[in-house]
Amino acid sequence: MDAKAMVSETEAGPRRAGRSGRARRVPEPDQKPFRQPRMTYRPVDVVSADALESIHDASLTILEEVGIDFLHEDAKAILKTAGADVDPGSNRVRFERALIEETIRTCPPEFTLHARNPDHNVRFGGNWVSFAQMASAPNCSDMDKGRRAGNQEDFRNLVRLGQSYNIIHLTGGYPVEPVDLHASIRHLECLRDFATLTDKAFHVYSLGKERNLDGMEIARIARGISQDQFDQEPSVLSIINTSSPLRLDTPMLQGIIEMSSRNQVIVVTPFTLAGAMAPVTIAGALAQQNAEALAGIAFTQLVRPGSPVVYGGFTSNVDMKSGSPAFGTPEYMKAAMAGGQLARRYNLPYRTSNTCAANTVDAQAAYESVFSLWGAIMGGGNFIKHSAGWMEGGLTFSFEKFILDVDLLQMVAEFLEPLVVDDDTLALEAVRDVGPGGHYFGTPHTQARYRDAFYAPLLSDWRNFETWAEAGSPTAYEKANRLWKEALALYEQPAMDPAVKEELDAFVDRRIAEGGAPTDF
Amino acid sequence: MDAKAMVSETEAGPRRAGRSGRARRVPEPDQKPFRQPRMTYRPVDVVSADALESIHDASLTILEEVGIDFLHEDAKAILKTAGADVDPGSNRVRFERALIEETIRTCPPEFTLHARNPDHNVRFGGNWVSFAQMASAPNCSDMDKGRRAGNQEDFRNLVRLGQSYNIIHLTGGYPVEPVDLHASIRHLECLRDFATLTDKAFHVYSLGKERNLDGMEIARIARGISQDQFDQEPSVLSIINTSSPLRLDTPMLQGIIEMSSRNQVIVVTPFTLAGAMAPVTIAGALAQQNAEALAGIAFTQLVRPGSPVVYGGFTSNVDMKSGSPAFGTPEYMKAAMAGGQLARRYNLPYRTSNTCAANTVDAQAAYESVFSLWGAIMGGGNFIKHSAGWMEGGLTFSFEKFILDVDLLQMVAEFLEPLVVDDDTLALEAVRDVGPGGHYFGTPHTQARYRDAFYAPLLSDWRNFETWAEAGSPTAYEKANRLWKEALALYEQPAMDPAVKEELDAFVDRRIAEGGAPTDF
Repeated sequence: MDAKAMVSETEAGPRRAGRSGRARRVPEPDQKPFRQPRMTYRPVDVVSADALESIHDASLTILEEVGIDFLHEDAKAILKTAGADVDPGSNRVRFERALIEETIRTCPPEFTLHARNPDHNVRFGGNWVSFAQMASAPNCSDMDKGRRAGNQEDFRNLVRLGQSYNIIHLTGGYPVEPVDLHASIRHLECLRDFATLTDKAFHVYSLGKERNLDGMEIARIARGISQDQFDQEPSVLSIINTSSPLRLDTPMLQGIIEMSSRNQVIVVTPFTLAGAMAPVTIAGALAQQNAEALAGIAFTQLVRPGSPVVYGGFTSNVDMKSGSPAFGTPEYMKAAMAGGQLARRYNLPYRTSNTCAANTVDAQAAYESVFSLWGAIMGGGNFIKHSAGWMEGGLTFSFEKFILDVDLLQMVAEFLEPLVVDDDTLALEAVRDVGPGGHYFGTPHTQARYRDAFYAPLLSDWRNFETWAEAGSPTAYEKANRLWKEALALYEQPAMDPAVKEELDAFVDRRIAEGGAPTDF
Repeated sequence: MDAKAMVSETEAGPRRAGRSGRARRVPEPDQKPFRQPRMTYRPVDVVSADALESIHDASLTILEEVGIDFLHEDAKAILKTAGADVDPGSNRVRFERALIEETIRTCPPEFTLHARNPDHNVRFGGNWVSFAQMASAPNCSDMDKGRRAGNQEDFRNLVRLGQSYNIIHLTGGYPVEPVDLHASIRHLECLRDFATLTDKAFHVYSLGKERNLDGMEIARIARGISQDQFDQEPSVLSIINTSSPLRLDTPMLQGIIEMSSRNQVIVVTPFTLAGAMAPVTIAGALAQQNAEALAGIAFTQLVRPGSPVVYGGFTSNVDMKSGSPAFGTPEYMKAAMAGGQLARRYNLPYRTSNTCAANTVDAQAAYESVFSLWGAIMGGGNFIKHSAGWMEGGLTFSFEKFILDVDLLQMVAEFLEPLVVDDDTLALEAVRDVGPGGHYFGTPHTQARYRDAFYAPLLSDWRNFETWAEAGSPTAYEKANRLWKEALALYEQPAMDPAVKEELDAFVDRRIAEGGAPTDF
């Protein structure tokens, strides 16, 4: 089967959705309704309270004594006004400890990111968990056509897959970079796809302020709300990566200024690879991560106190033989958990990731991802970016890995469902009825509950060896290949008010006609 | 390469070991020295304190009102003397709540299992973690020769692999059942192999009391100690599986009587599959698990107060479509963690497992295993059985899965290493030196630490996609196939005092000449 043949690039989707009244999806029991998991267990503390304070102190010392380079004049002006020590001869900005601590007090501990379908709104902070699809891969791959540079067709199919599975709560950026679209208008086409092919919340890249402005306007139009309401209700998010060590580049600072001033969501994520862009020791990498995160977070509050912001952690280690980044390692797990402790110290929502460095969907891809999720979930991660599809340290979005990850995320969500202990589940009557030496297969207690007693995995092959071997010894990789095609075949575009669609197209078409955005960022 | 060609079945091993003075092993940095990890993080509570008490109460109600079948007259006599309600017309035994609670008070919270090499002694309880090799598979498999029934050659090679990796702290039973040995003398040959091919602690099956007696004597001889010292120092362990629901069979009760009376280690493990041998609800399965475990544990203390005993949990769910057991599921994780809470409530060491239901070493094998380990480790598991090699719900020991699991266990051990936060690791001087915009690749702080800064995985392929593709796109499965052969090629039998070897052979040969043990158990 060819996915392309099944998914028409025409407007057939919306018409079909219009007829049925709502979009089709992968049906139950293969998935449950859209719902955010809650982290009801106590997150793991990998460092003591004292050690946490030492990391905090070290990061404030870095901000006070070493400082951060802010590569944007407007940003430096804002910082100077706020009382930061802005070096007149360079981009270096130093912060007194109290300035950081006072400034971040206005960050909201919890907030809602609004989707155009309000059923798909996402809550950040507290014990809320959300999973975003993998983002920003230059390549994609599937078992049939192999690895290739990103393009619009794959981009659209991956957005459709993100819409198809309820465990994917929002996009995290372009699942794959469609390089067949010119960089000046790429964001316009991609944002229009986000606004139409999915009704979940989406991400806007901070790559020049025009893109932020276009993204916000597209989100506002898609939601059909006024500018005022948009300013009241966070409706897009943008990831701000520091250029570690200790630098915030121009487009990132523009992004914070544009987005935070409109009360939109900023996720500040240093990319502190221990041994490369950060000290080789995890504690040192965390201190640097924390310094960079706090500097960016404080800046959002200087732009607009109370604007929604997320503490991002992405500390991992490098392969010391090749210098390439490693993911899902023991060091990654500990860093993810310590990052959660830091975020909770500041009462901030915490962003982490589901990553791996594997080149194919084998045991390595699975164990690195589950170790990542172990670190992310037990670390109290609220917003798990790159949740589904991530391969090769982020260089490729795999269609099959996406399905594998959807299964892993659904299992994690099931793990987070409370274990109910009451008279019904303790089943004393059933135990009395069955007694020693019997079995529970056909008992009324079992019969009444077996259909949805347990999570039914998408990929796990639980047939016995002989039956499995007769079926051709399929691997999880092969089954995943079938499932994403089936999901795409079932996909229907979510309905959109024709007036909204018209306004959206008019805006995007006008902006494309204007030439889009500068490409010299 | 053929493993058989590399590992001679002659006595070449010991002679080579004698020359070098100590056994060769897989060298560093592929592994670290033998050492038990410690669970220094706080285990996860999946149920509240109140819910835990409800499970505890329900299990005592089961023991009081429903009772357990004890299929052994001597056991019933011991129980009757202790005050249990032993039904004269059946095997049913009921326990007043206070009898259970009083009896288990003598269980030691921590103890040492002695190996013939004291460097390989294993500590149980507290926050000690130990990993035992997979046990009791009827089949084994490798990529070259496929799946086959267990035999002595494979048995020996798997014992050698268990000896080769320091992260395997002890055997957990026969890695594969060597069915080419007659059942009457199989235990004698296997126990001799345990005593000679490895110097780690080992397991004795409770399958008729002769086997327990032979196993204890072989362990005593191998350690070169007196009967008195043996009675002071636990030197073998035996798994006691209840025949769920609510039954303890004759050989299991014989095992407890023989082993506990000699102060050896008993691990009581109900096999409570929710929906099959236990209620379909996890809380109900846990209540039944707890009832069965407490009954067995109490019986050990009636045989000999203070004898070492471990609380075993093995609750999982079944595939409701086929009835076959599922492993590494969300339900399994929660049950493993709740089992840990129960064991800690009674201040007992806790046994759990690293399992999967996969038929091949693919993504499923990896994710089910890491989810199992997530449940086991965060659940506070002390003794992790089936840690390496387990496939197909226990029906096959895979040579390649063994290597995968060794890598997973080493990563888990690394994750459990404390994250050191001090002036050295916070690296403020390095951050000052590098400053904004630099990198840490060549700094003195990195240079001094990079060699052992991070765990170097056995299987993870961190080459970039192009290099990996040029190398033939190897999977983790294929790399594992190479590594177990390399490990076997490096194996040398651990040295043994010739006098001890002579005594051991004399005992085993005599017992074989006597015809071994009955096979009608």
